Amino acid sequence: MLSGSRKVKLVVSYEGTAFHGYQKQPDGLRTVQSELERSLEEFLGEKIEVFGASRTDAGVHAIGQVVHFTTEKQVPPEKVAPALRRYLPPDIAATSSELADENFHARHSARGKYYMYVINRSPSPSLFLRNTATCVQGTLDISKMARALEPLVGEHDFAAFMNKGTYTSTTVRNMFSLEVAEKGSFLVFTLHGSGFLYKMVRNIVGTALEAGRGRMAPEATRDILESGDRGRAGPTAPPNGLYLVKVEY
Amino acid sequence: MLSGSRKVKLVVSYEGTAFHGYQKQPDGLRTVQSELERSLEEFLGEKIEVFGASRTDAGVHAIGQVVHFTTEKQVPPEKVAPALRRYLPPDIAATSSELADENFHARHSARGKYYMYVINRSPSPSLFLRNTATCVQGTLDISKMARALEPLVGEHDFAAFMNKGTYTSTTVRNMFSLEVAEKGSFLVFTLHGSGFLYKMVRNIVGTALEAGRGRMAPEATRDILESGDRGRAGPTAPPNGLYLVKVEY
Repeated sequence: MLSGSRKVKLVVSYEGTAFHGYQKQPDGLRTVQSELERSLEEFLGEKIEVFGASRTDAGVHAIGQVVHFTTEKQVPPEKVAPALRRYLPPDIAATSSELADENFHARHSARGKYYMYVINRSPSPSLFLRNTATCVQGTLDISKMARALEPLVGEHDFAAFMNKGTYTSTTVRNMFSLEVAEKGSFLVFTLHGSGFLYKMVRNIVGTALEAGRGRMAPEATRDILESGDRGRAGPTAPPNGLYLVKVEY
Repeated sequence: MLSGSRKVKLVVSYEGTAFHGYQKQPDGLRTVQSELERSLEEFLGEKIEVFGASRTDAGVHAIGQVVHFTTEKQVPPEKVAPALRRYLPPDIAATSSELADENFHARHSARGKYYMYVINRSPSPSLFLRNTATCVQGTLDISKMARALEPLVGEHDFAAFMNKGTYTSTTVRNMFSLEVAEKGSFLVFTLHGSGFLYKMVRNIVGTALEAGRGRMAPEATRDILESGDRGRAGPTAPPNGLYLVKVEY
């Protein structure tokens, strides 16, 4: 790190609906990263590169995404979040900021992540929730869904629940906990793991829904996991129900 | 009415955020009326003119807006709403439809309307609610707000709570009931009246907020009402907290 430069850790929340995902796109599409960099550059008056903990897909939301960046400016790190508010678009909020250790990296230093997936089971779903929950009609057996999730807890090779499209050195991840709970007419999945593969949460939810609908035996997830065969797991659930809730360091 | 033509009453819900209000604009801006007419024309294959009960402003939402139109097509009226779903944009939903009497007019036949205004008082409001509730920070005295609303119940000349901009033959309206209630960190106003003048709900809410903040005596609303002077009432509350809930016939 250059003398006088400092690393800042920034926690942000965003509604993913109007973004082409988190990661910057070569063709100038609107992404969370590009909006964060533009806002920080306007505020700090220097070129900024932002590194995020998770590359959320288009339509996926974040309550506690973590990013870091390095600045030459002597702004107090904890003042970055409140100062940034006037530069950010209405669909991104800066929650907090603090000085980070020079070795800190939003993605590489992460030790765990929480994701949430929200399903709206209302037979006449409100259009006001169309972007922030996924609608599923029909009968779902919650106990079957919970049983389908059980074998996924612990350290496993999750290749069967990963979509192709990004490079990873290993497909082994540690799932600390995995729950599904009814909250009124909503169904909320909470996943806590060491890390998640590309589209892994949405593939797990899509597979659990197959079990909940009775189209797949709940016990089948154990075999699917062991097979490492993406073709045997369920379809990828839509992005609009998914939230990156928290990143742990 | 032409022989064979029939009048259909249609109930719709919409999120007003991405519309330039309900009413069709000469310059082709996106409005609720223009989207409804386009959708009905695509479905029915004929030119359709839609008449709405309320000309909601840009950013104002509807849970139960009522419109009517006349069609030459022999489609069963109750099938219009479900059939229309594939033609409507994601921010408009068709709730129900039925055959209307040939003398029915969505606006002129209305005998009462319910409006709701939602205020988010959370000190750290979720960005997911930015378009569907108005944020108000700081202390609000709910009992003062309720006292400020009391004198407005009954039949009155509401000129002091009307903005200029639309023609009306009389500024007398009957307010059947007017309530404000705390629901968690939200404050919900419910207004039920014979009809509402241009920006009347938002001006009443803006005035009640002045009383709640202690900037105005709650009793002052009686004098403001009697004065007929718009300059003495509070500011117009933002559109994003307002919902047209129901129209009565």
